[in-house]
Amino acid sequence: MAQEQNIDSLCINTIRTLAADVVRGANAGHPGAPMGCAPLAHVLFKDYIMANPKDSHWPNRDRFVLSNGHACALQYIILHFMGYKLSMDDLKAFRHANSLTPGHPERKHTDGIEVTTGPLGQGISNAVGLAIAEAHMAATFNKPGFDIFNNFTYVIMGDGCLQEGVQSEACSLAGHLKLGKLIAVYDDNHITIDGDTALSFTEDSMKRFEAYGWHVQILENGDTDIKGLHQAIAIAQKVTDKPSVIKIRTTIGYGSLHQGEETVHGSPLSEDDIRQVKEKFGFNPDEKYVVPQAVYDLYHAIGARGEKACKQWYDMVEQYCQKYPELGADLKRRLKGQLPNGWENVLPRFTANDKEMATRKCSEAVLTKLVDIIPEMMGGSADLTPSNNTRWKTAVDFQHPSTHLGDYAGRYIRYGVREHGMSAIMNGIGAYQGVIPFSGTFLNFLTYAWGAARLSALSKTRVIYVMTHDSIGLGEDGPTHQPIETLALTRATPNMLTLRPADGNETSGAYLVALERDDGPSVIALTRQNIPQLEGSSVEAVRKGGYILEPESDANPDVILVATGSEVSIAMEGAKLLQQKHRIKVRLVSMPCTELFDEQSRDYRVSVLKVGVPVVSVEALSTFGWQKYSHAQVGMTTFGNSGKYTDVYALFKITPEHVAEVAIQCINFFKKEGSVPHLFAEFSPAT
Amino acid sequence: MAQEQNIDSLCINTIRTLAADVVRGANAGHPGAPMGCAPLAHVLFKDYIMANPKDSHWPNRDRFVLSNGHACALQYIILHFMGYKLSMDDLKAFRHANSLTPGHPERKHTDGIEVTTGPLGQGISNAVGLAIAEAHMAATFNKPGFDIFNNFTYVIMGDGCLQEGVQSEACSLAGHLKLGKLIAVYDDNHITIDGDTALSFTEDSMKRFEAYGWHVQILENGDTDIKGLHQAIAIAQKVTDKPSVIKIRTTIGYGSLHQGEETVHGSPLSEDDIRQVKEKFGFNPDEKYVVPQAVYDLYHAIGARGEKACKQWYDMVEQYCQKYPELGADLKRRLKGQLPNGWENVLPRFTANDKEMATRKCSEAVLTKLVDIIPEMMGGSADLTPSNNTRWKTAVDFQHPSTHLGDYAGRYIRYGVREHGMSAIMNGIGAYQGVIPFSGTFLNFLTYAWGAARLSALSKTRVIYVMTHDSIGLGEDGPTHQPIETLALTRATPNMLTLRPADGNETSGAYLVALERDDGPSVIALTRQNIPQLEGSSVEAVRKGGYILEPESDANPDVILVATGSEVSIAMEGAKLLQQKHRIKVRLVSMPCTELFDEQSRDYRVSVLKVGVPVVSVEALSTFGWQKYSHAQVGMTTFGNSGKYTDVYALFKITPEHVAEVAIQCINFFKKEGSVPHLFAEFSPAT
Repeated sequence: MAQEQNIDSLCINTIRTLAADVVRGANAGHPGAPMGCAPLAHVLFKDYIMANPKDSHWPNRDRFVLSNGHACALQYIILHFMGYKLSMDDLKAFRHANSLTPGHPERKHTDGIEVTTGPLGQGISNAVGLAIAEAHMAATFNKPGFDIFNNFTYVIMGDGCLQEGVQSEACSLAGHLKLGKLIAVYDDNHITIDGDTALSFTEDSMKRFEAYGWHVQILENGDTDIKGLHQAIAIAQKVTDKPSVIKIRTTIGYGSLHQGEETVHGSPLSEDDIRQVKEKFGFNPDEKYVVPQAVYDLYHAIGARGEKACKQWYDMVEQYCQKYPELGADLKRRLKGQLPNGWENVLPRFTANDKEMATRKCSEAVLTKLVDIIPEMMGGSADLTPSNNTRWKTAVDFQHPSTHLGDYAGRYIRYGVREHGMSAIMNGIGAYQGVIPFSGTFLNFLTYAWGAARLSALSKTRVIYVMTHDSIGLGEDGPTHQPIETLALTRATPNMLTLRPADGNETSGAYLVALERDDGPSVIALTRQNIPQLEGSSVEAVRKGGYILEPESDANPDVILVATGSEVSIAMEGAKLLQQKHRIKVRLVSMPCTELFDEQSRDYRVSVLKVGVPVVSVEALSTFGWQKYSHAQVGMTTFGNSGKYTDVYALFKITPEHVAEVAIQCINFFKKEGSVPHLFAEFSPAT
Repeated sequence: MAQEQNIDSLCINTIRTLAADVVRGANAGHPGAPMGCAPLAHVLFKDYIMANPKDSHWPNRDRFVLSNGHACALQYIILHFMGYKLSMDDLKAFRHANSLTPGHPERKHTDGIEVTTGPLGQGISNAVGLAIAEAHMAATFNKPGFDIFNNFTYVIMGDGCLQEGVQSEACSLAGHLKLGKLIAVYDDNHITIDGDTALSFTEDSMKRFEAYGWHVQILENGDTDIKGLHQAIAIAQKVTDKPSVIKIRTTIGYGSLHQGEETVHGSPLSEDDIRQVKEKFGFNPDEKYVVPQAVYDLYHAIGARGEKACKQWYDMVEQYCQKYPELGADLKRRLKGQLPNGWENVLPRFTANDKEMATRKCSEAVLTKLVDIIPEMMGGSADLTPSNNTRWKTAVDFQHPSTHLGDYAGRYIRYGVREHGMSAIMNGIGAYQGVIPFSGTFLNFLTYAWGAARLSALSKTRVIYVMTHDSIGLGEDGPTHQPIETLALTRATPNMLTLRPADGNETSGAYLVALERDDGPSVIALTRQNIPQLEGSSVEAVRKGGYILEPESDANPDVILVATGSEVSIAMEGAKLLQQKHRIKVRLVSMPCTELFDEQSRDYRVSVLKVGVPVVSVEALSTFGWQKYSHAQVGMTTFGNSGKYTDVYALFKITPEHVAEVAIQCINFFKKEGSVPHLFAEFSPAT
């Protein structure tokens, strides 16, 4: 036992001294939390976490989430110890441009990182999603004697995470869902950047977690009570009908001259301080980046333990496939990330004779087909199910069976009025393998969730945002609910697709695109109001982002109208006015996705938006950004108004008549000028 | 007593039947909550709320916030009863375009509405701000015998509000701050849009509020227990060191055939249902929009009570001004919304010889001067004080005196890691009269707060967002913390100014602009990294949004470089390369605020961005939107990278060399084309 204590201390103190060196080497970063959390992280990995450094995507590995992502020196160090693809040189390159060890952990960037954390409150919320996915996969695939999925999700989180609203939302839902395999450790060090938590954070946070329905434990000495840490996690594992949180009192920057103070949070320790830390912990103060072989040995053994379990698991899966061939085939397919053969064939197709329909209803028709053939799709809504039309008739809710409202095999999540939590949870579900999350709210409330939605993009996670009520067309709910700036935001965001379909075919096309990509999120913006099915619209053309709606139209138009979503039919009416009343030749372009259009060849783009022809864009949201594609813009420059949607469109002059008027002004302006400017300059650094 | 019961019932049932008519008349809206909340709203107004319908801006009025803003038919009806500027015709125009009765309540749009609510969780968080402002004004101005400020802030909130993270953040802080005059009533009707709260919201929310440090009461029968409602509020008023919440069990849509069901939440009752409601409550089912005179009489008496109190208050203020002439003069000035004479003169001015400085440090210098002369400025940070540089040396924290960390006269708020709560609280502080809120976080985390920040703009509230670390220039923290899409968002948002100063003078200019306007928010984007003080920069020119940095430069440039913030000095170096190495004539334009530039005359705009000259923009954030001002863009089209900021700039080619290269390509391209396109088309519907 004494020996065990010794090796534990050695590991913990190696983490501490190495973290101090790594942060000092970067000349920027956060030494305090790694030094304070070293004991609890060590106990978690040594005694509990089952993961295989040689196969970091083993599906049934335990998930570890560092919600206080600024402490990532800790995580990188442990991954390095275990033998993940992270060398000592990588540690030395901490926070250097293009290194594998960025300032906060990034999924799909560094081996062994499950989710992208750092923005506070996200990691714990992602972990709720990971735990949902585990529970769902277990309920879907496990059979007697075949616990295909039974991993734990472990989280370390700090004071900052506990103050963020996204965490409150996700943890309230986690309690409701009784996610027994979620275990969160709260690094209670009483220090935030401003100073002592007494300045702003004096709530009884553990009472709050009890109110959420979590199992709560408190450990007074997280700095040295290794046995207590071990026992607390063992107890948490045994509570199977509640998520667990363990509050552990720690000392930030333990060992530093400034331990327990905010100064150790966000800046490297001084060289002198690091020397005394090393002396205190029995290390040579003249040496840097020291890892005793015994530490490597112990962590390699942790890795070997996981490797063995991983092998056994794959063997079990083979037996499972023999006993349950259909389920087994589906399991393997899902884990490979392959969609079922022929899934595209179920996408509904419409003709111009089909009845007018809101695209949110088209979306319901599409989803109803897709969820049948793609069992990995898991839907939900932030309490707007009947408005978002995200639930299909045969859906079963994802609920703890004791509620009699559903079960864990259910594929529809009642997120409650929790947009930010929903988005962060989807990032977690999408990061688990074998599940594709989608869910809805009003487009305007996507920005409630933006802290997480941008991380869907940064972390390259396939998340489908079903955003209905996508403009002033939502009508009576008024400007508080009408998005104006929202699509400028999504379009300005790297690696996020903004899809605004103009009718049923394009709605099918939007899902086609969203599901074909597996490396990022898609925002599908859908109308509340009915709109017509369009002549010439296409499912597949959505892949190109923008296309000529009437390919038979004149090759030499006087003006091009480019529109998205519900405004395509308005532009079409405007085109008719121009053609019939003014004998102006018009080309109509539907542009469901500007980002995909940008990815097309210049030849294609100028074949659509012809050089030398004036272009007028029509979209019932902010005109901001349309200057890239059009010479004149019909759209919004103010907030909206509460009224019948037709009245609101009229009020803001987003009408066929005004489109025609602007088109004529635009044509005349460029006639006077003698030329029409290019929209795509060759030299743009973006191309 | 029986008689009193009768008039109470009559009032409550009038509200219920009228709400049913009003929502039915709009053919859209939410009858359920108004019918369910009618008793508690009636008791609040009849027995407690002191406000003057003839002077709705009386500074010491009680504030009433309807956090479940979709129930606004209720609020409009009561305002109408009391005699605010809201006629029966206005009620009949509920949810009609351009009416005074939009689908959710809007500040500065409808007489008597304090804050803009509807997006869930905002109202209760605004109320925390209103209560902070009251406590602060009381501590600042009250003297023995002169309770100039002692109003209560009352809130009604629903299940939706209680699920939103912004509410959790704000209420946790409210408990910490011990805001005894904040009284929230929780309309616990067990129903959300998806159905019973059992689907997703089963936490013990009142235990959570206890954990926050609130005083909690529970009332089982909110439908008919008028006496209980009265007593609960009386008890809450007596708790002076804690905010109070009263959970009141109500029946949504009380009286309807579908009472207690989600169907009454968001759609009008059927005509038949309305008939039986009226019969049930003793009204003639054949009549619509009926208000018995006794109801008007009672509510007019409530108004008269407020009018009397208002008059007494103004008399007291006059006596106060005699006894405390200096304080009194300041009080009157602040309540008029006038800034102190000569405040602009304290703005620091810099010359090109002054040392390099991060604009966040310039901001600190500006704020240090401003807070001295403008005592109504109240600052804060979401736990990034030492990074945002928002706190001045002599600042006292706004804290409950019992903490010994500050007092209520303190003007610096420790918001904790709660960006969304902070922004919503600032909206409340700004909506109270006599206080101007400003506070900080990293620019990237403005989007955590967007749900509230867009409402700063929609509700025309002067809120100053001090957003530091405003680009990839923040360096090592990496892409999780580097804003890319953020300024596209703020610029696409109506009535919000985005200010990105290039040095000290422009930082002064940014605050000049932000304080001169009193009808909307400003986002001031500031660097982490040091940048030079520029030759030719100007405080006052910021008012024009963009200006030629070197007015003496050639009137006929070959190329124009337009840049913002930290990239102005990079563009300046690029210009030197072009001039010195390539003999190209360059004009350099600093564009701290595109929105203000847009407001200038066309003559001014083309005098800056000269027609016929290629323009290259430089900004280390998304290039999205710059096509309006430039023919080529140097900026970001991907997420950033974690590293030393100079390395990160080099990685993404935001360098003088690349700026020069793009400028040359741009010049050559248009030489080949024979003309350079206009940037400002006359026919734009925006102009």
